[in-house]
Amino acid sequence: MPDPRFFHRAGPQSLAQLAEIAGATLSGSINPQTQIADVATLQDATSADLVYLSDKKLSDALPKIKAGACLVSQALAQGVPATCAALVCADPRAAFAKVIGVFYPTTTSSWSTEHHIAPSAVIDPSAIVAAGAVVAENAKIGARTKLGPNAVVGPGVAIGDDCIVGANVTITCSLIGHRVIIHPGVQIGQDGFGYTASPTGPVKVPQIGRVIIHDDVEIGANCTIDRGMLGDTIIGRACKIDNLVQIAHNVVMGQACIVVSQAGIAGSCIIGDGAMIGPQVGLIDHITIGAGAQIAGQSGLMRDVAAGEAVMGYPAKPIRQFWREVAALARLTKRG
Amino acid sequence: MPDPRFFHRAGPQSLAQLAEIAGATLSGSINPQTQIADVATLQDATSADLVYLSDKKLSDALPKIKAGACLVSQALAQGVPATCAALVCADPRAAFAKVIGVFYPTTTSSWSTEHHIAPSAVIDPSAIVAAGAVVAENAKIGARTKLGPNAVVGPGVAIGDDCIVGANVTITCSLIGHRVIIHPGVQIGQDGFGYTASPTGPVKVPQIGRVIIHDDVEIGANCTIDRGMLGDTIIGRACKIDNLVQIAHNVVMGQACIVVSQAGIAGSCIIGDGAMIGPQVGLIDHITIGAGAQIAGQSGLMRDVAAGEAVMGYPAKPIRQFWREVAALARLTKRG
Amino acid sequence: MPDPRFFHRAGPQSLAQLAEIAGATLSGSINPQTQIADVATLQDATSADLVYLSDKKLSDALPKIKAGACLVSQALAQGVPATCAALVCADPRAAFAKVIGVFYPTTTSSWSTEHHIAPSAVIDPSAIVAAGAVVAENAKIGARTKLGPNAVVGPGVAIGDDCIVGANVTITCSLIGHRVIIHPGVQIGQDGFGYTASPTGPVKVPQIGRVIIHDDVEIGANCTIDRGMLGDTIIGRACKIDNLVQIAHNVVMGQACIVVSQAGIAGSCIIGDGAMIGPQVGLIDHITIGAGAQIAGQSGLMRDVAAGEAVMGYPAKPIRQFWREVAALARLTKRG
Repeated sequence: MPDPRFFHRAGPQSLAQLAEIAGATLSGSINPQTQIADVATLQDATSADLVYLSDKKLSDALPKIKAGACLVSQALAQGVPATCAALVCADPRAAFAKVIGVFYPTTTSSWSTEHHIAPSAVIDPSAIVAAGAVVAENAKIGARTKLGPNAVVGPGVAIGDDCIVGANVTITCSLIGHRVIIHPGVQIGQDGFGYTASPTGPVKVPQIGRVIIHDDVEIGANCTIDRGMLGDTIIGRACKIDNLVQIAHNVVMGQACIVVSQAGIAGSCIIGDGAMIGPQVGLIDHITIGAGAQIAGQSGLMRDVAAGEAVMGYPAKPIRQFWREVAALARLTKRG
Repeated sequence: MPDPRFFHRAGPQSLAQLAEIAGATLSGSINPQTQIADVATLQDATSADLVYLSDKKLSDALPKIKAGACLVSQALAQGVPATCAALVCADPRAAFAKVIGVFYPTTTSSWSTEHHIAPSAVIDPSAIVAAGAVVAENAKIGARTKLGPNAVVGPGVAIGDDCIVGANVTITCSLIGHRVIIHPGVQIGQDGFGYTASPTGPVKVPQIGRVIIHDDVEIGANCTIDRGMLGDTIIGRACKIDNLVQIAHNVVMGQACIVVSQAGIAGSCIIGDGAMIGPQVGLIDHITIGAGAQIAGQSGLMRDVAAGEAVMGYPAKPIRQFWREVAALARLTKRG
Repeated sequence: MPDPRFFHRAGPQSLAQLAEIAGATLSGSINPQTQIADVATLQDATSADLVYLSDKKLSDALPKIKAGACLVSQALAQGVPATCAALVCADPRAAFAKVIGVFYPTTTSSWSTEHHIAPSAVIDPSAIVAAGAVVAENAKIGARTKLGPNAVVGPGVAIGDDCIVGANVTITCSLIGHRVIIHPGVQIGQDGFGYTASPTGPVKVPQIGRVIIHDDVEIGANCTIDRGMLGDTIIGRACKIDNLVQIAHNVVMGQACIVVSQAGIAGSCIIGDGAMIGPQVGLIDHITIGAGAQIAGQSGLMRDVAAGEAVMGYPAKPIRQFWREVAALARLTKRG
């Protein structure tokens, strides 16, 4: 469930109310007055939660659903088990976006107009908060951690011990470990880039996840790390991220990965331990990079990469094959 | 004419003075003491304005010129109509840069050394201005709009109702609509990247346009949007822009476009309604992307793209052709 | 030697102590109690300094070494001259990183928790420091220079006359010339991205160099320029750098270079006078771009480029050859 430190949940909704909000038809034998307390991911849902199933996901997840209700397309509706109310609609993702907005009507940080350091903030006496820095309500700053001038730490954010947070950094909706170095101008925890189509243009999907940064991570200047849509964006222990890197919502990065400057990792990618992602590399969303994989600079990844594999190119291919193609193309101009 | 909220015009100049400043020869029968009040674009110029015509532009624009004076090369000078004084010079663009500097001697924001919120700023009582935020003289902040901590709103900037401006954002020389979301670290309205060559290196062309952002736009963290050189940089209604995107001076974007992270749109590009520009895409300057066109990630665009067209690659080509070439190149290494 | 304005050196170390810290074996006839005062680059070292030689560097540098001590691999140890103590170890670079940490135990800026403007800062009376800007201890701000709101100038930083520093900029460990324009959101002088491998993941190499920016440079919004590891990152006179550009540690850029938006220049590259680097170009580390070379947008450079050469592509090649290959590949799909 969304972290109450960052997102304030409104009261429960009945299945009937949810059907109306979602423009969905309630199917099955469950009482329409049954209360649903929250939204959740498929993995985390309990009987009090609503989930959604888009057509892209495999229908074999359906029988295992633990959720109390599910927004689902007509095509998949009959696979929903009897313990789960099916809310049948044309566009489950768009409907889910509307429902999130009802459970979590405000998703933006509330800032004090008066205090640079909120009275409710818990700042270790050994921490240093430079002039101009802002620490919002209920934020926690660990021992010996240093916040640079004009850094901004949002409501409920927790930062561990011995961290260095540079000037002009903004951190919201995030939990940060120990010995993390965040260079100036980094933006962490803002909304992910999620929309659904509509006749009047793209409609925003509320982003109610977090960013979790584990111990010993270093993040280069002016990077951007978006929070998860519903789950979390996770940066594993000892990852080292260079300047101007983009990490999108729900990316899960293992331990000790290296991401060189200006690389971009799209939504929900999974990066294995020790992977090395070169400069200006781009990954499309929902792909998996295996442990220890090496991605050469400027490569464009549109498929999974196996553990230990070294790839290069646009689209990325095994590095030897890339150079073979470069040579073949050069020869072609000599022949022809 | 440049917006007086952002740029303070010095007094008028005679044609004779302008010729001297520009290192130009005044040609035609117009009185050299005729006063010119301002600089302007070809489209907007009146008889009180000076324009310039570089050799790149088509000479068939010349007979329609409404301007009172025109910096022009020898080759094009005789096409200038009798109502317009021709100021003939070797490099009209460089000369125009000098003249702009005379009409608009200071183009940088003037900041208060004392006030975070200038007494002349007009802030709706329902707006929230967080601690550390700066609102400069004559800026306007609309109803229910929220400025995050340490956000900076420059002199004369107007922001509409129900906007969210993140922490550490800077906005200068811009007009922002309603319900606009600007994520942390975004920089809007700084000088475009314009130079002319000179023997001592590149010489800056003053940038005296604006940024106009229409309603319902969302702009991702650490994006940069430069103001126009003379006209405006325009982001149309409901455009959604991801993190770390670069939008150069005088770009004109239609409605409901999507621009994914780390894409870069060079100067004076025109983007049609509903176009989708993928991550890390690059557009060279002065090209047009038609409505609904789709540009795949990392593509490099060096020519116009028709409405509805889907392109990919470097240089970009129709998406099927891209994949055909990928396959052909792979086959080549097997044969050879 | 590292600049004492930015880095506080701890006391000298004996050769014996250094050998223990580095896990190295002291070889040769020099007294183990000999004191070493500092670390240095090969070029700058004197007899009081320690240097390191990685296997990549040519062994013909060895006889000319002026340093008093050298971390070196077994393979190269016997080439070290008798005037220089050889500290033999398996990984000289990793050992050097440890030793830097002993000579320079703290490498981060110390910020005041109270003062926006430190009492020891020297600010010319004609300079303008906007509300919210921070000027740390011993920083110097020249005549008529303007600091935008919430800009941050670190300890010991010197900024010349007639500069414009935008809002939300951070500058540390840097010396800035005259008439330099730094647009909003730029981050200058933070740690370079340097690590050595270890069994528990990448280990940080302390970065104790500076950034030197010469006169008349312009730097676009949200750029990042890292300081040198040991020497300096240098931007030559009149260079013009567009938005969102990444310049890594120890890059040395000549005069009047142009770097267009979102380009990335990796560590220790050398860029000749007047070179033009297009948008989204990437350079791998340690390459040299000759004077006046032109690099087309999105190119990926993996080798040196000669003066005046024009290249394009991934990998970059002469521009005509690039287009020849584009044409050949297109023809291939028609034949096949």
